[in-house]
Amino acid sequence: MTGTSFTLLGLGAMGRALAAAALDAGHSPTLWNRTPGRAGELLARGAREAASAREAITSADLIIVCLYDHASVHETLDPESDALRGRTLINLTTTTPEEARELSAWAAQRDIAYLDGAVMSVPGAIGSAEALILYSGSPEVFTTHREFLNTWAGSTHEGEDPGLASLWDLALLSGMYSMFAGFLQGVAMLQSAGVGAAEYAERAAPFLASMTELLGHSTEHLDKRDYGEPLQSLEWTTTLLDTITRAASEQGITPAPVDMVQRLIRRQIDAGHGAEDFDRIIESMR
Amino acid sequence: MTGTSFTLLGLGAMGRALAAAALDAGHSPTLWNRTPGRAGELLARGAREAASAREAITSADLIIVCLYDHASVHETLDPESDALRGRTLINLTTTTPEEARELSAWAAQRDIAYLDGAVMSVPGAIGSAEALILYSGSPEVFTTHREFLNTWAGSTHEGEDPGLASLWDLALLSGMYSMFAGFLQGVAMLQSAGVGAAEYAERAAPFLASMTELLGHSTEHLDKRDYGEPLQSLEWTTTLLDTITRAASEQGITPAPVDMVQRLIRRQIDAGHGAEDFDRIIESMR
Ligand SMILES: NC(=O)c1ccc[n+]([C@@H]2O[C@H](COP(=O)([O-])OP(=O)(O)OC[C@H]3O[C@@H](n4cnc5c(N)ncnc54)[C@H](OP(=O)(O)O)[C@@H]3O)[C@@H](O)[C@H]2O)c1
Ligand SMILES: NC(=O)c1ccc[n+]([C@@H]2O[C@H](COP(=O)([O-])OP(=O)(O)OC[C@H]3O[C@@H](n4cnc5c(N)ncnc54)[C@H](OP(=O)(O)O)[C@@H]3O)[C@@H](O)[C@H]2O)c1
Repeated sequence: MTGTSFTLLGLGAMGRALAAAALDAGHSPTLWNRTPGRAGELLARGAREAASAREAITSADLIIVCLYDHASVHETLDPESDALRGRTLINLTTTTPEEARELSAWAAQRDIAYLDGAVMSVPGAIGSAEALILYSGSPEVFTTHREFLNTWAGSTHEGEDPGLASLWDLALLSGMYSMFAGFLQGVAMLQSAGVGAAEYAERAAPFLASMTELLGHSTEHLDKRDYGEPLQSLEWTTTLLDTITRAASEQGITPAPVDMVQRLIRRQIDAGHGAEDFDRIIESMR
Repeated sequence: MTGTSFTLLGLGAMGRALAAAALDAGHSPTLWNRTPGRAGELLARGAREAASAREAITSADLIIVCLYDHASVHETLDPESDALRGRTLINLTTTTPEEARELSAWAAQRDIAYLDGAVMSVPGAIGSAEALILYSGSPEVFTTHREFLNTWAGSTHEGEDPGLASLWDLALLSGMYSMFAGFLQGVAMLQSAGVGAAEYAERAAPFLASMTELLGHSTEHLDKRDYGEPLQSLEWTTTLLDTITRAASEQGITPAPVDMVQRLIRRQIDAGHGAEDFDRIIESMR
């Protein structure tokens, strides 16, 4: 692959990482940022800086956007929609699935090919083997530019629904932040008995990693929405979690993560499902 | 090691698994259960069944208890405290740390050596290499019986404070159930876009497993309770979680796990710590 000429709108922490990795791989970016002067050493390494968003957009057929949020994307692109016509737009800004779908429809009306991307990595990982970016929307755009996109991260296409990349991203992060909160509750509990966070983490990290094996273990009941053959019943689990709550209170800890799980369980038990599987708490979230 | 004679009080699912694994390893259990007739095939394999708790307790120097909860342990042991005098009591019933400390003090007053245990495994895993039981309390009891205890599971001694085994157990389970709830929120989000739970789990399980590496990554600030050098600030994280909440709502999902994290964040931002690290949410739990 020879170097690809492309335009990058947005030079925040992520935009700069994308530009740097593209230069490393021999591509030719034209850069633009709302506040000028952010291109810094990227210019010395061969990038061009455009004086306006319009100049940037008309410099290449492939436009990558990595701005703060959905509103800033519209603020930047709306006045330039005629310049975008016939070009390809790949949006790496974090948005909701509906926002991605909206922008995709907006692009379609203006004859702009659209691919949505969700960056699953921190800026420091861009260009490394661990980095991952999920895409959804136009399969043609993905296929055409896949090799180029791989210079930033492993790239997957989740489907034509442009909201899917964002949905996957945000769903996975939900699991991560919930786990972080539960881990921190555990840290607080052990600290209250004089055990340090490092010692706790040393056991908790591999324990939680091994418990992720249970997640894929049985998923059929989740799709059938039939929780009648419990591995752990809601009644059994609520008794155990009640013990956790009492243990935490004894140690002066407010166990917010466990309280949250208890509320989800309570709604199902109150609806008469106490003998069914714990996974039924998913119904409390719909 | 030749077979150890011991008494086991409690033949629920866990008690029966403990008895079976002990028989497999050549030990000689005397069994008792409140409701008679639960010993079943264990008798044919060489176990004895005692007619009363007193007869069971006076049959051996080592008494293992695995009952429903703390109250059922006292209900069973209180009338027999004179028979227990001079013997060794190992309690595998799930209790809070304070309950374990209370029973340890109760035992000390009656000249009963006490070790508390927290079973970190399901009955089906007892006797296998993956099983783990945490102990705390008398180091002498642990050292003397360690080899015997290892026939059930890997055995660790967490310290002389008899509450520590339970505290570790319940803290680790807090992380696990929080992760499960966050995972299920993700399942619900993807199901709403037509992606099945198995497909979601296939990616979510290794993703969450790899995110556990972050847990041990930096723990110093947690013990110093100084969150001034953020990896991810509370302000940054709350914006991202707000996007998750909007995404979930769009898909008809109530994101209870993420809402819980947001409330913990909010208290810290309101107290003026928005620029500090996400891990500061631990202070919202004290
Ligand atoms: N950083 C990460 O770890 C990470 C990880 C995954 C995904 N992401 C996503 O990547 C995107 C960019 O993140 P970042 O870390 O680069 O953010 P950042 O460092 O805060 O940069 C934000 C960028 O957006 C621009 N911007 C803000 N409002 C604008 C507006 N109204 N019009 C035009 N430009 C505007 C800023 O320009 P000025 O310089 O003029 O303010 C800046 O270039 C976000 O959607 C983020 O969620 C980031
Ligand atoms: N099962 C697991 O996956 C698991 C995992 C880790 C830890 N544990 C812990 O292990 C302990 C036992 O669990 P399990 O699964 O064996 O429970 P279980 O199947 O419900 O059995 C409960 C046992 O407690 C007895 N019991 C209840 N109330 C009593 C009372 N007032 N006086 C005397 N005996 C009484 C029952 O006797 P009857 O037959 O007369 O009712 C039965 O033997 C619990 O503390 C549990 O939290 C279990």
